[in-house]
Amino acid sequence: MSAIDRIDLERLVVRPGTDPNLADRDPGWAQDLGIGKKEGREELEAAVDRIAGLQERLFAEGRRAVLLVLQAMDTGGKDSTIRAVTRGLNPQGCRVVGFKAPSRAELARDFLWRVHAEVPPKGTVGIFNRSHYEDVLIVKVHGWAPPDVIERRYDHINAFERLLHDGGTRVVKVMLHISKDYQLQQLRERVETPEKRWKFNPDDLAERELWDRYHEAYETALARCSTAASPWYVVPAETKWFRNLAVARILLDTLREMDPQYPEPSWDPGDFTASRLR
Amino acid sequence: MSAIDRIDLERLVVRPGTDPNLADRDPGWAQDLGIGKKEGREELEAAVDRIAGLQERLFAEGRRAVLLVLQAMDTGGKDSTIRAVTRGLNPQGCRVVGFKAPSRAELARDFLWRVHAEVPPKGTVGIFNRSHYEDVLIVKVHGWAPPDVIERRYDHINAFERLLHDGGTRVVKVMLHISKDYQLQQLRERVETPEKRWKFNPDDLAERELWDRYHEAYETALARCSTAASPWYVVPAETKWFRNLAVARILLDTLREMDPQYPEPSWDPGDFTASRLR
Repeated sequence: MSAIDRIDLERLVVRPGTDPNLADRDPGWAQDLGIGKKEGREELEAAVDRIAGLQERLFAEGRRAVLLVLQAMDTGGKDSTIRAVTRGLNPQGCRVVGFKAPSRAELARDFLWRVHAEVPPKGTVGIFNRSHYEDVLIVKVHGWAPPDVIERRYDHINAFERLLHDGGTRVVKVMLHISKDYQLQQLRERVETPEKRWKFNPDDLAERELWDRYHEAYETALARCSTAASPWYVVPAETKWFRNLAVARILLDTLREMDPQYPEPSWDPGDFTASRLR
Repeated sequence: MSAIDRIDLERLVVRPGTDPNLADRDPGWAQDLGIGKKEGREELEAAVDRIAGLQERLFAEGRRAVLLVLQAMDTGGKDSTIRAVTRGLNPQGCRVVGFKAPSRAELARDFLWRVHAEVPPKGTVGIFNRSHYEDVLIVKVHGWAPPDVIERRYDHINAFERLLHDGGTRVVKVMLHISKDYQLQQLRERVETPEKRWKFNPDDLAERELWDRYHEAYETALARCSTAASPWYVVPAETKWFRNLAVARILLDTLREMDPQYPEPSWDPGDFTASRLR
């Protein structure tokens, strides 16, 4: 059993109907897998190769899809996790969609409209960098929608994800979990490193003030929207190599369980022997 | 000077206003770079790393984009070239779009409508697996549009690509060049290899019959639509490692010439010293 397969996903998943208890989940935790950072990277590379092989089958099969939703507080590592886990996949069958502040056209529709438009087509892996969950996170924390509207959104989200699931799309959701201290460290690094400055937005400091209310909103969202079909995972994200391995494992397991198959040809190979193929 | 930089792109480009002369371009040619297949792969890996570095800057800069258009006869290697050249890029800033037979909704609009909708946003690299050129290739060969409609399309394409260029999107176009014999070999392999069977479509054999007419249509399209701003390249594609290196070089050069820069922060780093960042 390779190290990645020893990762205890039971510890990371939010069991349907339970409280995710973020305060009890240590963001600095990394499971002792008997390997260090360097072996962790090699393990990741091997995992990505396995994911790439399954991705090829998924594409060939052309009947189902995977949607990985990533959420995190600012500096939680969404971008680098995506880079680490998807570098090595075939970009032809893997698309990352980032959701920022909605446009006027998007605000003129229901909150799932722009998200629905971007779901991965059959045969592919889609990754959402932020998602429809922002509509029960930032929107809730800032009170941009009334409480009863937010309240109904959890059910809308569950219905939407069920629709995707029934259509053959496996939805898995990951919260990258960091502490407020860790965020400070990251923000300082962004300010101090010239090539990272473009990532720093002074507005993020105002969001940082709302840390506790964000965590509350996350807890409600995860409790209400982690289902057996489309579970939420809380991945401790301060040890980067472990974070990457854990997310890769979640993706790998999803694809392994789906077990995509090369399709049977609709033609008879005997009809296209060398002599007849000219 | 590394091997990839020695590739003679002058030999591959179609000079604006000239005949591409496909018959005079040997699809089996691989420039003698003083390296073999194995070193070619290492060279490719190094090139992709350089492309990834420039891609990061392009993303940070957020003002310009790259669009790489790939066209080829069936089995020309579009998919594997894309995989080889883009594996290692950050999928967050790189999107592959494949164009197949247009839908009814697409046919109800002009031929550039669906293509325009998929152009890469600023900061990213877009790759088209087939493209608007199909509307002057397969459509022309089959006579699905009258000659005078086809005739006007070259101008429409040039105007469209000029629009993209003026908006900061560098468009580069690559035809992967193979021989009819090479295609036969590839088709046989698809039929004979179980994991490749899903790629084989008996209808491709009918297209194969039209080889010469396709080549004629390619020659006209390349002659009419290779411009200084948005050039066409004919890449000999039967030696796979050379093919991959050549396409990587074209992408690399495009990005190097653009020379994207990290943006100046709109805030003053002095305002966010450690003591003020809490």
